[in-house]
This record gives sequence, C-alpha cells and structure tokens, in this order.
Amino acid sequence: MSTQPDNESPDHGRAYMRWDGWGDPARAHGLPNGVKLLLAAVLGRLPKAPSAPRLAEVTISTPPLADDDLAALAKAVGDDHVDAGHDVRLLHAGGKSTPDLLRRRQAVQVAPGAVVLPATEDEVAAVLAVAGERGLAVVPFGGGTAVTGGLTPHAGPHRGVVSLDLHRLSGLVALDELAHEATFLAGTTAPVAETFLAERGFELGHFPQSFEFATLGGFAAMRSSGQNSAGYGRFDAMVTGLRVVTPTGTLDLGRAPGSAAGPDLMRWFLGSEGTFGVITQVRLRVHPTPEARLFDAWTFGSFAAGADALRGVAQLGTGPTVIRLSDEDETAVSLAQVGNIGKALAKGCTAVVLHEGPADLAAERREATARVLRAAGGELADPRLAASWDHGRFKAPYLRDALLAHGVFCETLETATTWSNLHTLKTAVTAALADGFAGERARNRVLCHISHVYPTGASLYFTVIAGLGIDPLEPWERVKSRVNDAIMAAGGTISHHHGVGADHAPWLEHEIGSTGLRMLRAVQAELDPAGIMNPGALVDRRLR
Amino acid sequence: MSTQPDNESPDHGRAYMRWDGWGDPARAHGLPNGVKLLLAAVLGRLPKAPSAPRLAEVTISTPPLADDDLAALAKAVGDDHVDAGHDVRLLHAGGKSTPDLLRRRQAVQVAPGAVVLPATEDEVAAVLAVAGERGLAVVPFGGGTAVTGGLTPHAGPHRGVVSLDLHRLSGLVALDELAHEATFLAGTTAPVAETFLAERGFELGHFPQSFEFATLGGFAAMRSSGQNSAGYGRFDAMVTGLRVVTPTGTLDLGRAPGSAAGPDLMRWFLGSEGTFGVITQVRLRVHPTPEARLFDAWTFGSFAAGADALRGVAQLGTGPTVIRLSDEDETAVSLAQVGNIGKALAKGCTAVVLHEGPADLAAERREATARVLRAAGGELADPRLAASWDHGRFKAPYLRDALLAHGVFCETLETATTWSNLHTLKTAVTAALADGFAGERARNRVLCHISHVYPTGASLYFTVIAGLGIDPLEPWERVKSRVNDAIMAAGGTISHHHGVGADHAPWLEHEIGSTGLRMLRAVQAELDPAGIMNPGALVDRRLR
Repeated sequence: MSTQPDNESPDHGRAYMRWDGWGDPARAHGLPNGVKLLLAAVLGRLPKAPSAPRLAEVTISTPPLADDDLAALAKAVGDDHVDAGHDVRLLHAGGKSTPDLLRRRQAVQVAPGAVVLPATEDEVAAVLAVAGERGLAVVPFGGGTAVTGGLTPHAGPHRGVVSLDLHRLSGLVALDELAHEATFLAGTTAPVAETFLAERGFELGHFPQSFEFATLGGFAAMRSSGQNSAGYGRFDAMVTGLRVVTPTGTLDLGRAPGSAAGPDLMRWFLGSEGTFGVITQVRLRVHPTPEARLFDAWTFGSFAAGADALRGVAQLGTGPTVIRLSDEDETAVSLAQVGNIGKALAKGCTAVVLHEGPADLAAERREATARVLRAAGGELADPRLAASWDHGRFKAPYLRDALLAHGVFCETLETATTWSNLHTLKTAVTAALADGFAGERARNRVLCHISHVYPTGASLYFTVIAGLGIDPLEPWERVKSRVNDAIMAAGGTISHHHGVGADHAPWLEHEIGSTGLRMLRAVQAELDPAGIMNPGALVDRRLR
Repeated sequence: MSTQPDNESPDHGRAYMRWDGWGDPARAHGLPNGVKLLLAAVLGRLPKAPSAPRLAEVTISTPPLADDDLAALAKAVGDDHVDAGHDVRLLHAGGKSTPDLLRRRQAVQVAPGAVVLPATEDEVAAVLAVAGERGLAVVPFGGGTAVTGGLTPHAGPHRGVVSLDLHRLSGLVALDELAHEATFLAGTTAPVAETFLAERGFELGHFPQSFEFATLGGFAAMRSSGQNSAGYGRFDAMVTGLRVVTPTGTLDLGRAPGSAAGPDLMRWFLGSEGTFGVITQVRLRVHPTPEARLFDAWTFGSFAAGADALRGVAQLGTGPTVIRLSDEDETAVSLAQVGNIGKALAKGCTAVVLHEGPADLAAERREATARVLRAAGGELADPRLAASWDHGRFKAPYLRDALLAHGVFCETLETATTWSNLHTLKTAVTAALADGFAGERARNRVLCHISHVYPTGASLYFTVIAGLGIDPLEPWERVKSRVNDAIMAAGGTISHHHGVGADHAPWLEHEIGSTGLRMLRAVQAELDPAGIMNPGALVDRRLR
C-alpha cells in the first residue's frame, strides 16, 4: 500500500493517458502554421492559453482517505493495490471532456481519496463492502475516457471517494467459436480485446473514438456506440451477457440469445454508468475477421439529399458497416484536411461508406448500397476522402489538445432523433449554439455529421470550435446548458452515445419523466441502500 | 352497467374467441379418420374425452364484484363498460394454454369479479385508481391468447379481481411514413394493425401463432416473437416507444432510435406482463409492404446438419425473413400433412425459408442464403412443403382443439440457448419429457423445430402429444415442472417467447437470480405500492 506521492511510476503496470489531455503523450502534436492562420481568420484574435500546472504542482483540495480506510481497503485488494498518492489520485480525477481538461489546468483540484485496483470479482465485492461499511463513495473507473462527468469524484453524503480502477480485471475469459461469443473481464481495453480476438480469427468491431483506451465494461456502462455500428450494432446490441457486482448481491444476466423471461435486466445495467453496481464481466457477440473491407466516398448536393440517401440505405438494410455523412461545413474542413484546401469552398456533403464481410457478400452489399445512394443523387467521390477518414479516425482528441493549447475552445456533443425530425433538431442545436456563443461574444464554427443510422432515425454529432477566452469553462457551461434545453425542446435525446454522467443528469427527468426517475431511484435504494455507487452520475444530485 | 348474466351477447362489439378453445368457433374442425387411426397407433387406446360444460352451466366459485365496486368502476369508464355478467367473466377467466382449456372443462371455475373496458388512457388510469383505493387486483387483458398463466385471475391479498380488457383502446394513432414508425393504441389486434398499415403501403410483419387474435400491447408486455423474426426482429426489437400507465404515474418512453440516456426503461416494460402498469400505446418500426415473397424448402440429412446450416445463415446475416428447421420427427409429420404419408419414414429434416423485400434485393438475399445452405449439405426440397407451412401457419391451435376433443393431450413449450448448447438442451428437454411421460405411463410423441435464429443461438420449439388420460391437468403439471427444471439445468431460458406468467414464475429466480428478483420487486413496490397489478404473474406468488 502506497500512501505517499509517487511521481515516478503511478501506473501499477497500467498505461495511463496523458494526465491533462488525451492519449499517449508521445503522440501529442502542435498545429501547423497554416491551420493557425485559418483559425485566426475564423475565430479572430485568440488568447494565449494559460500554461497548465505540472502534475506535482497541483493542490488537491479533497484529503486522501484516512489510514484506517486505506488499511480496510488493502485487506480487500492487497497492500500493493491501494494507492492514495498525489499523482495517481489526479490521474483518476475525471474523464476527458473539454471541461475535464480545463479543470486539469487549475491550481486546486478535486480528486478521489484513493485508488483501488481489484483483480477479481470477489475483490470488487469486498471493496464495495468496505466502502459501504465505512461510508465511502465508489466511482468505477475503466479507461478514463468518459466525457459527460461520469468520473467526477462526487462524495455525495459520504466521507470520501474511492476510485475503483478496473484495469487489473482484464483478459479473455472464454471464446465460444461456434456461438460467436466472447467473454471478457470488464477492465479489458478495446485494443487488448481485439488482439485476443484477432489471434483467434475474430473481431468485435466496436470502434468509438475512445477505442484506443476505453474498456469493455465502460462501453457497457455507458451504452457506447462505435463508428461501425451500422454493421455490428451499438455496444448494447453486442452484449449477450453481463456479470454485475452490486453492494447487496451479484447478478449473472443473459441466459439466452432470445428470451421472454420478464424484463431484460441486462438492459438495466447497460447505461447504468457505475450506479447500482460494477460490471465485472461482459459477454459479447463477435464475428469472423472480415475478409474484405471496401471503403467508398460519396458526395451529395446537400446535407438534406445525403440524409435522404442514408435513410434509404438504413431502411432497406443493404448492410454497410460504416455509413456517415458530413454536413457542408464539416465536408469543407475534411476536404481541407486531405490537402485540397482549394476545395474548401466546394459545395456539397461527403459520405464515407464501408462494407465488410466475405468478399462476395461485401461486394454485393456495396453494390446494393450504391444503387440506393445513386438513386438519391449521390456520386462516387475521391476515395482518398474515405481513406483519410479511416486513417484519422482516432486522432481528433489529439487535435483537440493542440487546439486547446493554442487558445481555441473545442468540444463535441451529440444527440439523435427520427428521420422526420432530423433537420428540425439540427437547426435547433445549431441555433442554440449560435445564440449561446453570441451571448458569450465568441466567434465560432460548428461542424456536424450523421454518425449512426437506424431504420427509424439517426444521430447528429456536432464539433464546435470557438474563441471563448482565457477561461472557457463557465462560458461553455452556459452554452451547453442552452443546447441541452434546445435538444429536449426539439425532441432529441440528451445523449446518443456519450451518456448522462453528472453533466446531463439535470436533463434526465425531461428524457424519462419523473416516474422513470423514480424507477431508477427505487432500484438504487434496493441494490445500493447506502447510495455509495457513483453519486452524482446519472441521477441528478440536486434531486436527491 | 350490466351486473346480470347476459348469455346473448357478452361482446361489447368485441369478437371473442371460442370460450373453451381457440379462435373462431366457425373454424373448429374434427380429425380425419386417417389421423385418428394414426394417433391410436402412436398413443394407444385413447380415453373418451369428457364433454365440457356449456358456458351457462359453469359455476363460478369467485363472487362478482360488489355493487359499490362496480359503481366506482362505472364512474371511471362509463356504465356500459363495466360488466359482471357470468359469461363475460368466464370469457376473461384465463388464456389459451392447454391447462387453461382443460380448466374450462371443469364444472366450477375461477373468474374475475368484473370486466372493465376503458377507451382512453385516462380511463385506464382512473380504473387503476379505483382498484387501488378499493383493494382490487387488476389483470390487463388484450387478445386473451396468453399461454403461461398470465391471465389467471389471482386476487393475491386483494378483495377481488378486475379484468382490464383493452379492446376499446384500439386504433392507429400516427404513421410517420418517413421514419417508418407507426403508433397504435395497445388494444389494437395484429390483423387490425396490419390492415391499417397495408392501406398505407406498410407492414409490421409480426406473425406469432396468436396473430389473428393477439394485441400489440400484449406482444409488448410478453416479449412476443413472430415467425418472421429472422427478418424483422422479435417484437421487443420492433418497439421504438411505449406509453405505460402505472398506479402511481404515466411513462412516455423512447425518445430516439438510439440513446445512451441511462438504462433503456422501455425494456423494463417489454416483458412486464401486466405487472408494474398497463401499456396503453406502442410505437413500432414498420417497413414497406414487401414487393417479393420468395418461399423455399430445403432438406438436410440430419437435424445437426440443418442446425449448422441455419447457424451459418444467421452468423453471416444473409437476410432471410423466415428460417426454421424441423427435426426428423416433425419433418415426418409435416410430410404426412402435405399428403405424402408414404414419405413419413423418410429420413432428414426440412427447413422453410422465406426472403422478402424489393424484388432485386430479395433475390440476392435468397441466393446468398442458398449458397450457405448448399455449402452445409442442404438440398432444395419440394416447394409445397414451404407453401404448406405458410398456408397452415395459424391453424395449429384449431388442431389442438380437435386433438383435445379426441382425448389426445397436446401442448407446446419452448426455450432458447446458444448454438454450442443447442443439442445438449434439446436432448435434455426430450429426456425430461420422456421421463415425465414414462412416470405418467403415457405414450407420447415429441416434435421439435428451431423457430427463431440469432447470430449467437436459436430457440427450440417443442410440440407434444400424449395419452395422458381423462384428466391430464395434474399429470401435465408434473411433466412440465420436470421439463422446466431440465431447461434450467441445461442452461436454457425458461421462455423464448411465451413469457413467464404464473406458470413459469417459480423458475424465474433461477433465470435472473435473487438479486434480479429483488429489482423486480423494488420497482413493483415503487410503481404499484398496493400490489394490485396482475398478482401472481411474473413474480412468484409463493415468494411474496
């Protein structure tokens, strides 16, 4: 057990992301001068971003857990796996939303009182028992990639916060090659899972932007959606079984691929966000590594025309793995990124499409999709657009770091609705962003794409950059609050795949109603009577 | 308000099924002499089935509701829509399982104390309020086709039982032609819904055997699965929105086609079986009426070979609308039914396959499926086998009536598991049936088919006929109990699509665990603190 700051190696064999930004510090990069000039043209004069404190310089305002708490936790997981060191606490102080990163720049920060790393389900249960007995809140921590405040260490009414890091609960439990099912421990990261599967000829195919660092348990808890969801489904559709440890009992859910044995309780924990309990094992539908991967880029005269085309594909079920459509502004930026800056003013919208599978079937699916896209006015575009998207699909968060360092506020947000309400919702969000930024006197640029399609509707994913000044945290909270109100008023969901967390919790009642909230609280009271599990996430603290 | 027996027309404009059997009395039929001879050969000497009492002759052991209860209910729904008449009570005395029908033969029967027919969601809420105030249990009643005891009028700790017949809550609320979504009142029957949709060029495509009589709300409450589920999904996968009236509040769920706004509460009410509340509206994904419907029959050397072939199709996703495989015994009976009795001893198993959609896509899908089936050793078979299945798909329950009248016990049961566990489960269920019937000294015949396929597994649907004597009710309960134990021991689900009801409730704890049951009870206590909603269904009465 280490209770002393350990600036050298707070890792427990764990590759942490950069503490005050995204990902692998070695892959951080600056902005090319051309981009800086472009940004100045779009956003005007940018402030010199304040330099963040070094990890060791930060003052943590919340005390570490007391020695007797640490000793009790050490009994549960072993001396070496409880850590109240300064650095490791800060590494578990939040997720990776832009507000999270802005908080990492502050001189005084909030952090959990200790980090514990259980290696077995029994150790997870033992940690929850200790926390319950001693009045400590527990915040489950997977890859640390959450972007809606689900990792913020709120103590609620408790004496302190334990960050329950699931990193050591990692590995393949079983692969059923006949049933195409793989069971993993919940702390397994997505790349580790894909490596295990690839060695056996299989793939999971869940590629959200957090792919390189996120865990399978985190995907399940947040109802994540990956870029290949058109083909392989949202993460919640891939899950065929869950084991969950709650403060008052363990659940083993998902007995059969189809069941009518009452409500599907697995669905209660998909989206549970660390409340109710800790997901310890995830059983998943997997598929053979695709033989063919056929990328295409298509162009449409307008976002509306492109959206109609995607709707046709989703409703006919021609079977693309990926199908996404950028709006006019995002298309212009994408074109610029592939080195065609001259085309930045080109009209139209680009769609990226991928078909996978055995070579014959992938080719047939591609042709069936092409028929629909062509009939809707689409034209095949420069395939480099698709290659470029594929190449850069996990790089955006590094670009955000570079933008933030350059004084540019950058964040994403997302929602979903039916096809018939899609343009109304896009207009409403765009207007709320425009009004919000106007209220902050901030020049800005808003890009949007359809990231996920369903027969009945689609998601909208917005990227915003803005000149929000030297301290954008509160201005952005005001803008975001206005956007959330607009999403609710326009019939969208408060989140298509980022989750609720603490950030969206105040809007959840609008989404599911007061009776729905009462259901969440009733199960919370039953499974977690002491209310120790992730206070503040999902269910609004202010309503407790 | 009618409190007197009304033997003439207990219908409120409602076409009830035959009170002591299935469906339209005009379509009841006897058994051909050839079949009778065959049955005698298989089952031995059959008892002369006792003739059932006429409706008017039955004694109801449970009293009708008291006048003041009826008056209070009449305030909620109007005088004309509360009925405590003898016949209408018996028409709501249960579902259509074989045990239900056997109970209809008894001289003394249990029935609800009255039937109420609300026409609006507000009236549903008013009925629940009256029931809560007056200590009456409420059993929601849709098409009356339940087969697992979900309609049995258990009063639980209450003074009496109200059957809440949703027949008047019928009709199309909205059709969103762009989003392919239709909203119906929950009491709309499936054929009425399909008629509404067909007039507008759409189809729901949910065809369980109960299709001709069941309601959309019932499908949702029971997590029904239709014969076209390979193409259009289980009913719970078609649902995009629900409105639910509980004793303590109304929910409007399903804001977006994809959402990560916490647990999907819609999934709590899919499978709720009339506990927690009453589903009043169902929003559903629909599709354009298929241009082409291409039926094929295939034959395989063995059930194992056929199951492997179906697995290949499900895992590759070639897109059949229907794909089902009969085992050797069922195949022999099917062949006999199409007039090839001489082939009854033929070896092998038959699969029926249907592809639908626009002509070009349906043909491509058919060919992709054919490649897989052929590679797995399948051969195209006499297409009359497929045509015959299609023609007879809703007739089996009428045949059951004829068998029961002839002294032959006939019932179905079903489960599901992964592909890797499928044969183990089939063997276990078959052995439990054999042992069970042996214990009853009953000759029998067991037929089985795979009715629904998923990438990770499939369902098994068993049809049993047996010579269980003059009063098969208790002997069958013993056999069925043994089968349920075997299903649980062999890793199957207690139900793939018939639901839990009162019949399977004792096995639910094995399926979802004691912590899962506590979740159900916690939400029950929150939404229905008086416990009036369908006592006995879903959550075992003995555990209350």
